[in-house]
Amino acid sequence: MSKRIKLTVAYDGTAYCGWQIQPNGITIEEVLNRTLTDFLGEEIRVIGASRTDSGVHARGNVAVFDTESRIPSDRLSYALNTQLPEDIRIMSSEEVAPDFHPRYRDSVKTYEYHIDNGRFPDPVRRLYTHFVPAKLDTEAMRKAAAWLVGTHDFASFCASGSQAKTTVRTVREINIFSESDEVLIQAKGEGFLYNMVRIIAGTLIKVGLGVYPPDHVKEILEAKDRGKAGETAPAKGLLLKNIEYKKID
Amino acid sequence: MSKRIKLTVAYDGTAYCGWQIQPNGITIEEVLNRTLTDFLGEEIRVIGASRTDSGVHARGNVAVFDTESRIPSDRLSYALNTQLPEDIRIMSSEEVAPDFHPRYRDSVKTYEYHIDNGRFPDPVRRLYTHFVPAKLDTEAMRKAAAWLVGTHDFASFCASGSQAKTTVRTVREINIFSESDEVLIQAKGEGFLYNMVRIIAGTLIKVGLGVYPPDHVKEILEAKDRGKAGETAPAKGLLLKNIEYKKID
Repeated sequence: MSKRIKLTVAYDGTAYCGWQIQPNGITIEEVLNRTLTDFLGEEIRVIGASRTDSGVHARGNVAVFDTESRIPSDRLSYALNTQLPEDIRIMSSEEVAPDFHPRYRDSVKTYEYHIDNGRFPDPVRRLYTHFVPAKLDTEAMRKAAAWLVGTHDFASFCASGSQAKTTVRTVREINIFSESDEVLIQAKGEGFLYNMVRIIAGTLIKVGLGVYPPDHVKEILEAKDRGKAGETAPAKGLLLKNIEYKKID
Repeated sequence: MSKRIKLTVAYDGTAYCGWQIQPNGITIEEVLNRTLTDFLGEEIRVIGASRTDSGVHARGNVAVFDTESRIPSDRLSYALNTQLPEDIRIMSSEEVAPDFHPRYRDSVKTYEYHIDNGRFPDPVRRLYTHFVPAKLDTEAMRKAAAWLVGTHDFASFCASGSQAKTTVRTVREINIFSESDEVLIQAKGEGFLYNMVRIIAGTLIKVGLGVYPPDHVKEILEAKDRGKAGETAPAKGLLLKNIEYKKID
């Protein structure tokens, strides 16, 4: 009897060309497929929830696969972690319904965008933060972010080349945290367009620098034109923190 | 006229064989000497405050050197950061008195020992934390740490091979912070013996795991025997946060 297993996957994206298998470099999906296939002795193809870009990190991406294995589902994480490179870890493993699909189920994703706002880039955080040396006005960033919360057409915040049928999305929360030299943008939503969180981060950074007044974000949103928003902030500052599913049966 | 410059140096110790020049690998001191010599066109030899071990990180180590250069002292950090590898950064540069010596002046050093106390090691923090999967009792660790604060003979907490004249040291504070899956041991003192912070961390981890009761640390201290304390915790969890000098004239 085949069963479907859900993995919560954490990784340091520094050394990978993102999640999705591609010809030009090693990806998370490829390492998972290879490791699972070798370990279980069956041909395994995982289905990922979020196909994160090259250099993006995750603490809680989700992948599912089907297996004939009799290894208890919750023990798989321990076994797999002994086989994986140290920059990829399975944080949990559990059995889910055979029709559970990580992209087609309702879910809330939480992303974090980490900014090093010190005078010089901190070497210890350099791989996981985007360095912005000028002091950010986090109060202005909070005001700007408020325009983005809710259900909107986010065409201005979607990279060209996206195959999404609609650019309407619902953002549940955007929180801006600031502690000593670090500024953190936390975005929660039911789904994000291609590069959307990084374009939001790039735009909010421009607000924080005083380039855009906070209310300008309303105009960017209404323009429905990618050219109006800020730059796509660098991948290394982005972390997919977790994906919560409403119901896993 | 020669002047003495004090640098505050941050580094990711992962790729280095520690601070001090040695034959078997590249060190922070060596990279600083080479970069300063090339950039200033004078033979430069820095004097470091703390000769951190292989793999140890720093946000605020201190180095001084003498130069004939006329570059304004506070601008040197900007110039040097364009020449250094990205895992070493000069966080500030300033002129100090010609007799200022970073090791012989009174100072307070703050070290942090970072523990990943999650179920599986977080890939994004793996290079900067020591992973301890069993839940640590931080209240017990706090009680144990209290025995170490003050002026004591720390012979039990000093690696063999140390050339220190005395093993008496003053620890000003040891704080244990805990947030989600991270436990942080912060130690402040006027000077630490060789490996002392890592042996304190290894010992407090044993207390946190319930191997030692908190009061056992008093017995370890009184034994004045390195064999009685816990293991030296791994280098990668240690960060030299800063060094405060009482007076720089």
